Amino acid sequence: MVKRYLCICSYDGSNFVGWQIQPNKRSVSEEIQIALKQFHKKDVEICGCSRTDALVHASGQCFHFDSDLLITEDKMKQAINTFLPDDIKIEKCMIVANDFHARYLAQSKEYEYLINNGEYNIFERNHQTFVNKPLDVDKMVEASKVFVGEHDFTSFNTSTLNNFPNQIREIYSIEITKEEDLISIKYHGNGFLRYMVRMISQVLIEVGLDRISISDVKAMLDAKNKQACRYKALPNGLYLRRINYEKS
Amino acid sequence: MVKRYLCICSYDGSNFVGWQIQPNKRSVSEEIQIALKQFHKKDVEICGCSRTDALVHASGQCFHFDSDLLITEDKMKQAINTFLPDDIKIEKCMIVANDFHARYLAQSKEYEYLINNGEYNIFERNHQTFVNKPLDVDKMVEASKVFVGEHDFTSFNTSTLNNFPNQIREIYSIEITKEEDLISIKYHGNGFLRYMVRMISQVLIEVGLDRISISDVKAMLDAKNKQACRYKALPNGLYLRRINYEKS
Repeated sequence: MVKRYLCICSYDGSNFVGWQIQPNKRSVSEEIQIALKQFHKKDVEICGCSRTDALVHASGQCFHFDSDLLITEDKMKQAINTFLPDDIKIEKCMIVANDFHARYLAQSKEYEYLINNGEYNIFERNHQTFVNKPLDVDKMVEASKVFVGEHDFTSFNTSTLNNFPNQIREIYSIEITKEEDLISIKYHGNGFLRYMVRMISQVLIEVGLDRISISDVKAMLDAKNKQACRYKALPNGLYLRRINYEKS
Repeated sequence: MVKRYLCICSYDGSNFVGWQIQPNKRSVSEEIQIALKQFHKKDVEICGCSRTDALVHASGQCFHFDSDLLITEDKMKQAINTFLPDDIKIEKCMIVANDFHARYLAQSKEYEYLINNGEYNIFERNHQTFVNKPLDVDKMVEASKVFVGEHDFTSFNTSTLNNFPNQIREIYSIEITKEEDLISIKYHGNGFLRYMVRMISQVLIEVGLDRISISDVKAMLDAKNKQACRYKALPNGLYLRRINYEKS
């Protein structure tokens, strides 16, 4: 008999090529599979929800896998953490229905982008993106409204239209706050395409720097064209915060 | 004509073998010398104040060097920062007297040790030391008083008595505060021997965990013996915060 486990995990993306396995490179999902193999004594494949890029962080990534060890949720969490390197951590582990799927059943996702608008601080270099000219947060808030709602985000991602013919997504909210030098942009939406959060974040930064206008932003979105937006924020300020699943 | 420059610098010690140059390893002072060489077009030797260990951080390390470029303090700071890697930063640069010496003229030093008494957080793993059992801060404060004042710290460092026959140092203050899960131990003294701050910090942690008593601590100090203290806190929680020079 096997049970399906759903895990919520954190990782510091600084030393990873991202979530997805790449030959001869250090990926988050491979490290987790190596940890699982240690105490399962056989290969255990995991299925993650979101393919985060190199250097991108997570505090709420989700993945599922099947195990015949039949141990409790807490023991499973403990066992995996025992074998994980110190930059990945299982925060929670739950036994779910055998047909649960971490990717297909995700209803919405939350990301956060952190910008430090103060002086460069070496201790935060991997975890915040530094912008050393003053950002006009009010303008950023104004520009963010362009993206909220259901839109065709063809201009704001790099997925090909062949593989992703439907590039319509709904962003439920974009919340921008500033506390001292730290600016946070929180995104909640039903799905995000490749580089979408980083491209939107950099566009908001460009507006905040007064380099482009809100009508430029609208024009980019309306263009529905892969060449319309040439902006992409650095990966180190991005965090996958939460995956929301359907209430059963 | 040459001028002597004094620099205050920060570094994230996570990826360094420490301040001192070691063959084929990445040290802070070698990286700074490489940066200086880039725009001096010749070797420039620096003289640092404190030899921080591998993985130890600094926000107030000081060093001096001589330069015949005769550029302003701000230009010198800018020039070095331009060539430094992103985990070292010059915070301030000052032209000083030609007989100024960053090490010999230091009058006192300030260190801080950061302990996180909460749940393990991957994002802070290189910058705080995690202790996952509750620490009794009041007891730690009580024990810290044993060390304040002028003492023979033979038991609390690993420098040999041959090289350092005088192991008497004065600690002016030890200030312990707790804010949420973060415990800070701030040290101010006229000098600290090798591993001294880390050994004292771990002893305070052991007291906080109720594993040793204050009279054990007193006995260790009184022993003046290299075998008396077998405790040493991890390097990742330690910061060199400030060097104070004589008022001229």
